[in-house]
Amino acid sequence: MTTDSQQDKFRRKALQVPDAQGRILPYARRLPAETVALPDAQGRILAERVTAPHPYPHFRRSGMDGFAILSRDTQGCGANRPALLEVVDEIPCGSLPSVPLAPGTAARIMTGAKVPDEADAVVMFEMTETIRQDGKTYIRLIREIDPGKNITPVGLELAAGEVILEPGRKVGAGEISVLATFGIDRVPVVRKPRIAVFSTGSELLAISEPLQDGRIRNSNAYMLASQIKDAGAEPFMLEAIPDDLELARQRVRAAFADYDAVITTGGVSVGDFDIMADLVSGGEVEMLFNKVTMRPGSVTTAAVKDGNLLFALSGNPGACFVGFELFVRPAIGRMLGVLQPFLPEMTAELGRPYKKINNFTRFVRGRLEAREGKLYAYPAELDESGVMITIKDSDALIVIPPSGEAREAGEMVTVLKLPGASL
Amino acid sequence: MTTDSQQDKFRRKALQVPDAQGRILPYARRLPAETVALPDAQGRILAERVTAPHPYPHFRRSGMDGFAILSRDTQGCGANRPALLEVVDEIPCGSLPSVPLAPGTAARIMTGAKVPDEADAVVMFEMTETIRQDGKTYIRLIREIDPGKNITPVGLELAAGEVILEPGRKVGAGEISVLATFGIDRVPVVRKPRIAVFSTGSELLAISEPLQDGRIRNSNAYMLASQIKDAGAEPFMLEAIPDDLELARQRVRAAFADYDAVITTGGVSVGDFDIMADLVSGGEVEMLFNKVTMRPGSVTTAAVKDGNLLFALSGNPGACFVGFELFVRPAIGRMLGVLQPFLPEMTAELGRPYKKINNFTRFVRGRLEAREGKLYAYPAELDESGVMITIKDSDALIVIPPSGEAREAGEMVTVLKLPGASL
Repeated sequence: MTTDSQQDKFRRKALQVPDAQGRILPYARRLPAETVALPDAQGRILAERVTAPHPYPHFRRSGMDGFAILSRDTQGCGANRPALLEVVDEIPCGSLPSVPLAPGTAARIMTGAKVPDEADAVVMFEMTETIRQDGKTYIRLIREIDPGKNITPVGLELAAGEVILEPGRKVGAGEISVLATFGIDRVPVVRKPRIAVFSTGSELLAISEPLQDGRIRNSNAYMLASQIKDAGAEPFMLEAIPDDLELARQRVRAAFADYDAVITTGGVSVGDFDIMADLVSGGEVEMLFNKVTMRPGSVTTAAVKDGNLLFALSGNPGACFVGFELFVRPAIGRMLGVLQPFLPEMTAELGRPYKKINNFTRFVRGRLEAREGKLYAYPAELDESGVMITIKDSDALIVIPPSGEAREAGEMVTVLKLPGASL
Repeated sequence: MTTDSQQDKFRRKALQVPDAQGRILPYARRLPAETVALPDAQGRILAERVTAPHPYPHFRRSGMDGFAILSRDTQGCGANRPALLEVVDEIPCGSLPSVPLAPGTAARIMTGAKVPDEADAVVMFEMTETIRQDGKTYIRLIREIDPGKNITPVGLELAAGEVILEPGRKVGAGEISVLATFGIDRVPVVRKPRIAVFSTGSELLAISEPLQDGRIRNSNAYMLASQIKDAGAEPFMLEAIPDDLELARQRVRAAFADYDAVITTGGVSVGDFDIMADLVSGGEVEMLFNKVTMRPGSVTTAAVKDGNLLFALSGNPGACFVGFELFVRPAIGRMLGVLQPFLPEMTAELGRPYKKINNFTRFVRGRLEAREGKLYAYPAELDESGVMITIKDSDALIVIPPSGEAREAGEMVTVLKLPGASL
């Protein structure tokens, strides 16, 4: 008669989440730059610092439709002593003044047009009265106008050489506006990380296959592909790996040659059929960690082969989702050179009690709400690791540190905001 | 001698923002559905309700690696009176039990595998001790196990026929996970609205042209294209319209035939060269409004031709940006069938004073911050309508209603969260 110790066969040493994250990041090296056309830069990460090639605005710009004037011509004027200025020019946007502006004259000018060099103020159209006399046009003014009025000076927004955008910044509408303004129509962005996704497990059906008893469809690969895209990388869904160690080893080895990182889902539990755990423990790759003090996803594993990262995520949908957000997303962010690659962290008030007790930190899927300037977090009713349905309704992961006591509504909790949260 | 009244030549009647929005939405009709492959559904809007074709899970699923047992076999057991069960089967994921489970026996089972019909509990691997004797394998248990333990019942997450997703929902990782789980590999989504973008104004340089005095690059068209994409529609940047009324009329007329909506930027001020204002007042289109009690962008104009929307946005970058977010984004959202097409509205505490006074509601670009469960809004230093540089640093539009008094730090304000906000 023999007795097994029945302990975890891989003798896992559990790391705290930040320690596990810290072991990954040194291997997530920034990828090289590539150049794309401005419209294609949307959602990409800037690879280089961009500085202003010229001041902005680059000419003295009228902020109003009205008349460019010499402000001293209005000195001392009032209702009983109006100033009368002859209109000698008309300057639409994009045109240049056609005559120098002499004292006692004005130029009709449009919003955004270049103010004549001699003028030092623009008076609003509505503050003037137009008088036509002897084939000439005059404006009548009954208020003093301050020098500089309604003129945007050269370089008000940016001086030449000033930094416009720093590398690591995501390009959105505001960045595109700035880049277009400065004529930057080819944009240096970081190449998208190419991420391979393997599912493991003979239980997996292709999503188009009819259902079979005891088997499930391979939904995690699709979910991960979506998360990868959202993180700014390019997913490659590879053939699912069956429960065969040698085959798994070959396929993963081949993937390392072609992709910047490899994710597997499934096969990291403590069962006898855990291919990925065998693979990692077999010396094929260098293990970074194979257990994390978190729920769901405590058996999340990360390893390195020739400097490239392998993430072996749980096959449970909820644990797979959380494992990606806590470990893979930051790694992709670092490959892209993003400055803050982690999920944004904030504090919120727990909107309802959370009764589950655990010796590991829980990352509970939940909803965020903002009411009267305050943030509230509502844990999902079903947040077991195997539960898939509440992923779509989650704005955030609510962080519940280990404690022997239930958390009550009204307590403050840390939340990690998920991408796509409505809040 | 003649005297002009010098009033707004289009006799505009200003609408409040919600009234102006209300005039647009009836013309923003939902577009037809199209079917895309599941991975391509990301970011798209669901066109139809999706219900569960089968319960989920569809078999009794083990939540643990361990042993499927009959719980009554553990009744009364304890440290001094262990239960000994013979292991008669091994059930990996995706496999079915090979023998019925008789009293006094157990089946080794993996997380996610189908629990034998006769079993009513799964005991964790770590809670057992394995004993091998006479070529047979037994497990030894010293604790009573409750019926149902570690078994996920059929339909726990969803019953057959239950609604999974409602139309109008944006597809993200969670939705993709659910759709894949139910084998829905072709997804009905709403066709993307095709939106034409015209810039108007002879002052505009193409972004690749060298700078010229008095002229600016056509940055608004690129910014709008980015905003359109972000709103879920497809932008088409058309040739910029020069300041020629007849040409403008022809081009806009042609665009209405090919696109779901038309946006112009520039030419809606009160100047003499305001093509769009002339176009709208000329009866070519039916005017919905041509002035809104807002800053920036008070001369934002909307019109309808043959049931299709025309938005004539300001040429000022800040006003153009805000005009899109307040009027065009909700219209695109409605065309997509999105249930809440407006920018998310919340309350925040003003993080610093806002001194500008206005008789119109101001939509001030600003940053949001969350600290200790509270939301703070910081107005940008430069938020004039002509200012472009602060658009990229904005998380939100801070709503400052008309008032004769400055707003102090600590006051509560309404904010409209912009897409892509880091918060």
